[in-house]
Amino acid sequence: MNARRQAVRDQILRTAADLFRERGYRASTLDDIARRLGMSKTSLYGYFRAKEEMLAAISRETIESFTRELSLVLRSSLPPEDKLRRVVRQHVRFVIANRSFLTVFFSEEANLPPRFARQLASQKNRYDKGVESIVVEGIRRGAFREAPPRLVVYGLLGMLNWLYKWYNPSGRWGAEEISAAFLTLIEGGLLTAPRRGPRLSSRLRRLRRELQSVERALDG
Amino acid sequence: MNARRQAVRDQILRTAADLFRERGYRASTLDDIARRLGMSKTSLYGYFRAKEEMLAAISRETIESFTRELSLVLRSSLPPEDKLRRVVRQHVRFVIANRSFLTVFFSEEANLPPRFARQLASQKNRYDKGVESIVVEGIRRGAFREAPPRLVVYGLLGMLNWLYKWYNPSGRWGAEEISAAFLTLIEGGLLTAPRRGPRLSSRLRRLRRELQSVERALDG
Repeated sequence: MNARRQAVRDQILRTAADLFRERGYRASTLDDIARRLGMSKTSLYGYFRAKEEMLAAISRETIESFTRELSLVLRSSLPPEDKLRRVVRQHVRFVIANRSFLTVFFSEEANLPPRFARQLASQKNRYDKGVESIVVEGIRRGAFREAPPRLVVYGLLGMLNWLYKWYNPSGRWGAEEISAAFLTLIEGGLLTAPRRGPRLSSRLRRLRRELQSVERALDG
Repeated sequence: MNARRQAVRDQILRTAADLFRERGYRASTLDDIARRLGMSKTSLYGYFRAKEEMLAAISRETIESFTRELSLVLRSSLPPEDKLRRVVRQHVRFVIANRSFLTVFFSEEANLPPRFARQLASQKNRYDKGVESIVVEGIRRGAFREAPPRLVVYGLLGMLNWLYKWYNPSGRWGAEEISAAFLTLIEGGLLTAPRRGPRLSSRLRRLRRELQSVERALDG
């Protein structure tokens, strides 16, 4: 596909996604999309023959972007903490930049052809497994606390994906503030004095024991 | 409304919500709903005159349940940490028990009559503000770390609401395991040795200093 054709195709998909987000997929027609683009329906047909094709393209490109970004992180030699930080920052930036795509991706699954829906579900599952592998590695290395990795992933992705519901482009927060707040929560939790994992408390106990033995030696 | 009529009405709404979740709201017809209920369309009309009324009832009852449960927590004299724990547990249980309602609630907003949609948005906003007040109180009392409260709320609710997307009633996790994993993350974060607030690290430093002074005394 030449560059101009690619640019027009992208523009069509963005416009369709905006419309699907605003009115819902089923309530939007090809006429509406052509009208908003200022394009004839005949020219539009040169790119997509049906609304279903646009929906499928939006969904496919969304999961492919996620997968591409994740695989770069997975192939890096970063420690799991940093891999996770990169995934969080990328995910926030991506959702913010592609809000309409994400809304369609998450809301219109019921309208996808069954075979394509199954394929998409398995791609999503591969993405989840990729993030899960970071969590598993972190737990194995003792960098992350023990918790069922899949549940941790669902929690994280819920936090990140939900952005498409509340993010307001003219609101007060940008990608940086949002990532920072989420990372505060994800890395260290909300409590200032949580019941910590074994590490810190066992280090404290060990120090206390050493202290007592030294004191006893001193007294004796 | 008498008890029998109320029970039939609830049954109709549950069935409609299941169908809307499976096929999408627009693709479901009153005929489909009547058929699945084994009820005549005439009897159905005695309860709801249009599909729109069912959608509105499902949305209204969902937000009202959330609000009712939250206001009990807010009126309690529990410390903010425990208020938050109760909100998390309630929210998980509610989403699991009402998955179809939640799916419709979160996916079909575009199909609500505009006036009702605005009303619902302001009820949702009140709910968010209620959870935010717990976070604000926790930060003020020093029980929660500093972070923009609204972003913390969006993160938490994202984690909790996302359940409607992935929860599998025949899967391996129930409400208890899910709440426990989410609370692990929310309370203490994922990292075993995060850059903590001053508390624990200053206790460690103090102990280490005492130990060194005792050792020096012992050596000297």
